[in-house]
Amino acid sequence: MIVGCGFGGLFAVRALARSPVEVLVIDRNNYHLFQPLLYQVASAALAPADIAQPIRTILRHQKNARVMLAEVRRIELAARRLYAGEERIAYDYLILAPGAIDNYFGHEEWRAHAPGMKEIEEATFIRSRMLRSFEIAEIEHDPAERAAHLTFIIVGAGPTGVELAGAIKELAVDVVPRDYRVVDTRHAHVVLIEAGPRLLPALHADSSERALAQLRSLGVEVRLNQRVMQVFVDGVEVNGERLRSYNVIWAAGVRAAPVTAALGVALGPGGRVEVAPDCSVPGHPEVFVIGDAAWLVDRTSGAVVPGVSQGALQMGRYVAGLIDAEVRGAPGARAAGFQYRDKGSAATVGKSRAVVELGRLRFGGLPAWFAWMALHLVVLIGFRNRIVVLISWIYSYVFFRRGSRLITRVTLPPEPRA
Amino acid sequence: MIVGCGFGGLFAVRALARSPVEVLVIDRNNYHLFQPLLYQVASAALAPADIAQPIRTILRHQKNARVMLAEVRRIELAARRLYAGEERIAYDYLILAPGAIDNYFGHEEWRAHAPGMKEIEEATFIRSRMLRSFEIAEIEHDPAERAAHLTFIIVGAGPTGVELAGAIKELAVDVVPRDYRVVDTRHAHVVLIEAGPRLLPALHADSSERALAQLRSLGVEVRLNQRVMQVFVDGVEVNGERLRSYNVIWAAGVRAAPVTAALGVALGPGGRVEVAPDCSVPGHPEVFVIGDAAWLVDRTSGAVVPGVSQGALQMGRYVAGLIDAEVRGAPGARAAGFQYRDKGSAATVGKSRAVVELGRLRFGGLPAWFAWMALHLVVLIGFRNRIVVLISWIYSYVFFRRGSRLITRVTLPPEPRA
Repeated sequence: MIVGCGFGGLFAVRALARSPVEVLVIDRNNYHLFQPLLYQVASAALAPADIAQPIRTILRHQKNARVMLAEVRRIELAARRLYAGEERIAYDYLILAPGAIDNYFGHEEWRAHAPGMKEIEEATFIRSRMLRSFEIAEIEHDPAERAAHLTFIIVGAGPTGVELAGAIKELAVDVVPRDYRVVDTRHAHVVLIEAGPRLLPALHADSSERALAQLRSLGVEVRLNQRVMQVFVDGVEVNGERLRSYNVIWAAGVRAAPVTAALGVALGPGGRVEVAPDCSVPGHPEVFVIGDAAWLVDRTSGAVVPGVSQGALQMGRYVAGLIDAEVRGAPGARAAGFQYRDKGSAATVGKSRAVVELGRLRFGGLPAWFAWMALHLVVLIGFRNRIVVLISWIYSYVFFRRGSRLITRVTLPPEPRA
Repeated sequence: MIVGCGFGGLFAVRALARSPVEVLVIDRNNYHLFQPLLYQVASAALAPADIAQPIRTILRHQKNARVMLAEVRRIELAARRLYAGEERIAYDYLILAPGAIDNYFGHEEWRAHAPGMKEIEEATFIRSRMLRSFEIAEIEHDPAERAAHLTFIIVGAGPTGVELAGAIKELAVDVVPRDYRVVDTRHAHVVLIEAGPRLLPALHADSSERALAQLRSLGVEVRLNQRVMQVFVDGVEVNGERLRSYNVIWAAGVRAAPVTAALGVALGPGGRVEVAPDCSVPGHPEVFVIGDAAWLVDRTSGAVVPGVSQGALQMGRYVAGLIDAEVRGAPGARAAGFQYRDKGSAATVGKSRAVVELGRLRFGGLPAWFAWMALHLVVLIGFRNRIVVLISWIYSYVFFRRGSRLITRVTLPPEPRA
């Protein structure tokens, strides 16, 4: 049984296609979401359906897989069963891949003012709020209010924060200015706030420098070593200073989905489950935790397997291989433990700007941007999605337009329960 | 000034592009919605952004047009001004094109259980509810509950009801069955209820017969001469009989947007404003009402101009022409009055089935379906949209798939205020 159909869960169930097992996939959404491109939904470049594919459609031809739309409420490790929706379900093996949620460091009340970038509804909410702010700025008489509507604050400078800051500034500078008569959106103020000393802390310092230069040349204000102390409906308090903005977005860090806390086992930083080298829960070889809900120190490198899609999908394949070997009567495969292969990292900073790291190779600019685009298109699930996303990208590249600039009414999803 | 940017408002403002006037377009949404295809969003074939285009983008190159996102709350005919959002705005000419809303005939409480097909949020709500019902049916143990989740009731057999019934049945029969392991969605029960004696009452009886035969061959249950007396969360009461369904959709008729009631002038059936032959409000030659908020008996035919997109856009062009002539000092153009030209009607009943009427020509089947498709693609606003919609159609035709099968959290829009 597999809980969660992000990259980890999806690659695990696919890798089990020819195994003599019955797989049940449980997810609280009916789609697999390509999270790395969610910021493009928030910045009105792509439509939600471009980056989300129904799980049932993906697994349509996999005979040994069933899909269930439900939220997992409780897991009884000793009894080897769990509760999903109204159902009680027993398992032989369990792969937990519930992913991560935004970490507000104890200030859950900030979520309403500063949604994160994890769910489709958050992205469409951020998009609608941003577009409505442009509309209000166009008719607002008070200069201070107008400025607050034209200020966009992104908290946290990981890949999501960096990419979103670039995309919003670009939207304001290149895409929408000709649409407005009164207000000049090119003066929109995009502020990226990072508590640490550099952007993209997971990448090499060279890439951080490169991304910083690219963002600043775009006109994004980058504030390093500054910590957000308070979030209001109309701004933030950062290092004692009050910045006004009706568009605060949270990208300051994640923690494991709360279902991990219900396991009753040792948790590492950010609520991630400290798993054994084979990704299993200590004392329960039949239960695996993978993806960014797992905390695993790689034996060779001594580094923690990062909470990125590559980490999740490699863990998914690995764990599926273990299970396949054991049900076929060939145990002993676990001894080696999981080994993470860094296939490189990339972040884009607006159109034709990006930073890419492939092994020792680090580069930026247009080549990096093409590499980033190719990489994402290859991994993007689903044939139709690839074509539509490619068209949308070419279209907005050539015409400086964005395809999904709709203001709609959205309900923010409830926080996942423990 | 133009209020409402549906077909009527949009064609009016475009027709005024070279006039020596300043145009202000006010709409409560930031996009022009291609309502005739909204049912394809509800049935998961198209994404919202495929059929909606930001008004600002459409009017980007029209120098004399400004756009304002606001709801019009009050109109003072005598003082020639109106209140939109927080603003008070004076006008020389006013074109009211607010469109229609669903008519629950005094039972507004039914809206929550049986949303209509007027707004994007309603379509995505209907889509999400329908897809969730398939999911619940897959795990539901109680056969009666399962059947209620697999029953879809559409109230009203105008074009929207007919097209939606066909699209949902097709989704259940051709698109999703292979995705489910337990439930057989091909047995999903689609019921179309019509109070009148035939389908598509606005078309010729031949077309009604043809559409009826097409729907029945698809497996849709059509109930004519039956009136819905009550709507519940889990079904309807029709002719004393209780039908259970968690998916009731309202397509039983429309009334003019409530802003018309605030004018203080004579209203015709469905709250439509009884306008003079030149579409103006009697006693106020500077105020026009167009589209399906207007009630106008055509001089030549003696028939009421129908509340369809063709009627709205022809009225929009006509009124724009009158205003242009008058501001250029050439009055007298009003004498002839507006004349409606019926350019034909079409309704599609699922894939490769449709009925089309062009003058005296009436036909069905595959040729009608191609005619319907071409017609809609030509009128669809926006270059990108046309390409994406065409790809989506070809894709779902060839692969029997639907592109936008996402269950998302949606807030139904509030009823427009008077």
